[in-house]
Amino acid sequence: MEKYDVIIVGGGVAGLSAAVTLVKKHKNKKVLMIREEEKELVPCGIPYVFGKLGYDVSKEVKPHQAFLTNGGEFLADTVISIDREKKEIKTSSKSFAYDKLILATGSSPLVPKFIKGYDNKNVYYIKKSHDYIKKLAPIVKKANKIAVIGGGFIGLETADEIAEDKSKEVSVVEMQENCLSQAFSKSFCEKAEKALEKKNIKILNNTKLSTLEDAGDQTKLIFSDDTTLVVDLVIFALGYTPNTELAKEIGLELDRFKAIKTDSFMHTTDYNISAIGDCAQKVDFITGKNINAMLASVAGAESRLLVENIFGIKTRRNCLGTIRIFSTSLNNEVFASVGITKEEADRENVKVFTSEFMGADKHPETLPNTSKVTVKLTIMQDAFHIIGAEIHGGVSVGEMINVVGTAIQAKLNIYDFYTFQIASQPLLTGGPTVYPIIKALEGAIRKIEE
Amino acid sequence: MEKYDVIIVGGGVAGLSAAVTLVKKHKNKKVLMIREEEKELVPCGIPYVFGKLGYDVSKEVKPHQAFLTNGGEFLADTVISIDREKKEIKTSSKSFAYDKLILATGSSPLVPKFIKGYDNKNVYYIKKSHDYIKKLAPIVKKANKIAVIGGGFIGLETADEIAEDKSKEVSVVEMQENCLSQAFSKSFCEKAEKALEKKNIKILNNTKLSTLEDAGDQTKLIFSDDTTLVVDLVIFALGYTPNTELAKEIGLELDRFKAIKTDSFMHTTDYNISAIGDCAQKVDFITGKNINAMLASVAGAESRLLVENIFGIKTRRNCLGTIRIFSTSLNNEVFASVGITKEEADRENVKVFTSEFMGADKHPETLPNTSKVTVKLTIMQDAFHIIGAEIHGGVSVGEMINVVGTAIQAKLNIYDFYTFQIASQPLLTGGPTVYPIIKALEGAIRKIEE
Repeated sequence: MEKYDVIIVGGGVAGLSAAVTLVKKHKNKKVLMIREEEKELVPCGIPYVFGKLGYDVSKEVKPHQAFLTNGGEFLADTVISIDREKKEIKTSSKSFAYDKLILATGSSPLVPKFIKGYDNKNVYYIKKSHDYIKKLAPIVKKANKIAVIGGGFIGLETADEIAEDKSKEVSVVEMQENCLSQAFSKSFCEKAEKALEKKNIKILNNTKLSTLEDAGDQTKLIFSDDTTLVVDLVIFALGYTPNTELAKEIGLELDRFKAIKTDSFMHTTDYNISAIGDCAQKVDFITGKNINAMLASVAGAESRLLVENIFGIKTRRNCLGTIRIFSTSLNNEVFASVGITKEEADRENVKVFTSEFMGADKHPETLPNTSKVTVKLTIMQDAFHIIGAEIHGGVSVGEMINVVGTAIQAKLNIYDFYTFQIASQPLLTGGPTVYPIIKALEGAIRKIEE
Repeated sequence: MEKYDVIIVGGGVAGLSAAVTLVKKHKNKKVLMIREEEKELVPCGIPYVFGKLGYDVSKEVKPHQAFLTNGGEFLADTVISIDREKKEIKTSSKSFAYDKLILATGSSPLVPKFIKGYDNKNVYYIKKSHDYIKKLAPIVKKANKIAVIGGGFIGLETADEIAEDKSKEVSVVEMQENCLSQAFSKSFCEKAEKALEKKNIKILNNTKLSTLEDAGDQTKLIFSDDTTLVVDLVIFALGYTPNTELAKEIGLELDRFKAIKTDSFMHTTDYNISAIGDCAQKVDFITGKNINAMLASVAGAESRLLVENIFGIKTRRNCLGTIRIFSTSLNNEVFASVGITKEEADRENVKVFTSEFMGADKHPETLPNTSKVTVKLTIMQDAFHIIGAEIHGGVSVGEMINVVGTAIQAKLNIYDFYTFQIASQPLLTGGPTVYPIIKALEGAIRKIEE
């Protein structure tokens, strides 16, 4: 039986990132990556298959060439069982021994079995599978009336892309009062909805789907208030659940979201098995609370941390939790969020206040294509640490959120951050006297003084 | 004689920023801002008058309305003298008493008196003056052949904008081996030059101007190698010198660049007089050395710091020096820099190494309008703190440099920063496994291990 220093199960963002980093860092170690499918998609890019990538799934394939050319070995196969005692793993075709095992098994779309007719013939998911999306692409292309169920960022990005084809009628169905309400405060959620409505996407908030029924070739959606909507295609985007059946079978402890429990160095309850990415437990950076948050950026950070420490602890900075940093682009308006909003802080009994500023992404604002930029900061009331931000504006917001994310992770307070120097350039940022992050910090300091 | 709690001399970025922040923070204080001109330009925006703003200077005016509506008083006048004993200031029309005085007198273009014929009739400058630029705009518009002398970022931005009009022949004359060599390493300088050459701008490096001569209505430039160039218009962009005649007259100490010496709270050698912006001394954040660096972003940071502390020290974080963070856009390619390059570190005897990574600003890279992004980091050899970065790519680079700038100012080392979480989004950033800043950090860690 062949033995590997490290076997990685899964080859999505977490698995592949760990795999490539491992073989580059440890040139003398034997590393095997086992993944169900031969081809892997860029997971965050899936919505763009149905729009900007012109339904061409091949443009969305994520190569693992850097892993192979650095000596890594790859097997497309299904893992059947793991023997923790013997440190062996069995796939449907072979068995291998391992020294260290990394579980990066990812997550699968939540299937709403509680909805009658959830398995209707026209129902699909944003599944992180090359073969599945390849099958789905022509179906989306053909459909005229489409309902996306779930107004989280995956649902909205998918709706936004599908609506690039003006002939399609796209609706988003959201149970909550607003779309994106997990990540943004109400005013930001409403801006996002408005951006999509400008593109003729129908947003149905406060709308609970109760039944799906056949209506000829189409499907009839019946909502809990008895209103209906007939569509050609239903896409469920209700979130994801961790793929942890295997971990459960071998007796690794799971958290309340069925994710694999880990310590802050990503070890599971078996020290020789680590877990990273969507299948691994998440802890909130601010509250220390076990939460359910799945983001490629967190998977990337976890994989880097794991690889630094897998053959002995080398990096003092263990994983202090996820700051849930992300951005989304909806009809060319960008919405980004990091940390926690005031609404969430209130629920979690974190004492905070907020400060908001609206500026621009160019100066003078008379320059062509200037976008307004709104920054809202969440600040702790004791030592004035920044623990959250929401930003809305143009493309520059995608990196602006990383400025605040860096400040949060560096545990800066508002007084420190306020005096930082910021690069400003007429075509690229707000002006040096009205740079929105700095002005929001200034507003926060003024609030303390009042 | 009217008495003010604070009188500000100058109303550019430093002065106006201090003025607005002061009146918002201290609603009961009487604040007067005295500036030579009634109207002030957005200084960094001046090059865009000659291109994207369509020669319309009115689009470039920076309003000081926020200062007035918050109770600030404004006077367009020239300051004649200051009596430090009596704490009085005299303009050409009036006299005032002050409690605190802020000098924000800015800087003026360097006039190269060492060049024969420097005062030729067709010679102009990028002067931060509304009236001057208003006069210059139609002259630039009319000119067909233009030489910009000086390949710093102001010179290059000006050349780039003028060349928006394809009928114009624009040349940049640079004495050094490369343009932008003060802020970037050679490979980045060459990319910037190439970006401009694609727009048919002629870059004349290693070219020293020795004489200007009349040639009918035109001007003949004679270089030290006896080659010549005949143009309609010469724009000198050789840098700026601080406006400190007044400060010198009243006995404030100046540094070797003729900037006003200050302590880290921006007090001059007279505790009741502070100096901020281009007229004030600059100290390098990394080396602690007195340097010559004029950036609006630094002026903004200094003004914020000053206002926090002007009526008693409130903020523990005094000014630790300038990190010289800035970005520039040349023919739609963005170049940004912060801290020091390896070349400069070598000169200053700072022990460093570098790490470079080329990624992209979208993922998958098959998405439309993807730009390559190159990040080069400068890292100290002892505790591996990041002390510099150069980034080249698309518009997102304007904010990416602020991510690294925040890390530098938070004094992060590469191990800390490497495990940070970064928001990634297909349309807005590189992928989570290949985000360029993180990959450059990873490369640096690999170099230490080797």
